[in-house]
Amino acid sequence: MRILLVGASGTLGRAVAAELGQRHEVIAASRHAGSVNIDLTDVQSIHRGLKQAGELDAVISAAGKVAFAPLADFKAAPYGESLHTLGIADKLLGQVNLALAARDHLRDGGSITLTTGILSQQPIVAGSSASLVNGAVEAFVRAAAVELPRGLRINVVSPTVLTEAMPSYAPFFRGFEPVSAARAAMAFSRSVEGAQTGQIYTVF
Amino acid sequence: MRILLVGASGTLGRAVAAELGQRHEVIAASRHAGSVNIDLTDVQSIHRGLKQAGELDAVISAAGKVAFAPLADFKAAPYGESLHTLGIADKLLGQVNLALAARDHLRDGGSITLTTGILSQQPIVAGSSASLVNGAVEAFVRAAAVELPRGLRINVVSPTVLTEAMPSYAPFFRGFEPVSAARAAMAFSRSVEGAQTGQIYTVF
Repeated sequence: MRILLVGASGTLGRAVAAELGQRHEVIAASRHAGSVNIDLTDVQSIHRGLKQAGELDAVISAAGKVAFAPLADFKAAPYGESLHTLGIADKLLGQVNLALAARDHLRDGGSITLTTGILSQQPIVAGSSASLVNGAVEAFVRAAAVELPRGLRINVVSPTVLTEAMPSYAPFFRGFEPVSAARAAMAFSRSVEGAQTGQIYTVF
Repeated sequence: MRILLVGASGTLGRAVAAELGQRHEVIAASRHAGSVNIDLTDVQSIHRGLKQAGELDAVISAAGKVAFAPLADFKAAPYGESLHTLGIADKLLGQVNLALAARDHLRDGGSITLTTGILSQQPIVAGSSASLVNGAVEAFVRAAAVELPRGLRINVVSPTVLTEAMPSYAPFFRGFEPVSAARAAMAFSRSVEGAQTGQIYTVF
């Protein structure tokens, strides 16, 4: 398969590339590195990146930014002035837009795999925006799966905190059992190389 | 209790007012009717409405608009040009903003109750934006619950399609067992008059 991997330079992305690269051609995309440049918040860069990547059997996002801040810092505010703006523009609409553009680009029977995280189900302090965004993406994926044309599939991988991220994230995730990026990467393999659609592959 | 009910003039809102009005003072708010005018997409109207309502023990939203359209109509687009804009601005950020403003306004121990719907869990054709929005609100509520100050609580009610809405919605909800607005209203009573927080009360 030819697989476009957005967020290829991140901890999770590198593990996904290592897993799928054993058997497939993985085209690395990221904001500033990789053979293709895609910024999820820039729709034109998504279209350009897909075109540049050419024929594809799978599109994966292992990317998506979101603001972590105590709930007390969140104030009622319109879209552009909200602390939720980053997460909604990037990890939420960015991944939804990647999926919509991939729908119009993938070969018949291709797959789309997005990334969320455990906070959609298990909250932490300062994680309300991440929870919101992850919950949105997971529900979108379940819904999009029943309407995708041409045998296209869509799934999402929801890992818990990564072992590799614990040096900086540990204080926010006390008591959470981390998983290695390599283990989380297996769920991407399951989505891409399996046959299911509308699934949320939890890795926790 | 003094309860502010946003969306009081809708089918669900009227049933919630009928249920809670038996035992409490319900202050009706809606976009154009009610004793208080609140438009969820207008942060200033939320602040004004809460101030006008005075001391409150509970804030309920039985409101929130979202676009229904086939997935094929959704194209990759930035926030303001996306078909998701209505749902994100209204039912998602509108309800989140109401919750955040209510947090700063409610009496100690007060409660916030938002509304989503079955599409967060069970998709239908043309419902991907509703699913996205409902999933976001539910995950936000679970997360906000662990950070609210002063003994404040937050829950969400997720009803299936209402019996009263079937004349127009039936073609989208074939095979779904509808529930009456009166039955859905009981879940709001459970949230407001109960003691739990971070709950998703499904009515289906």
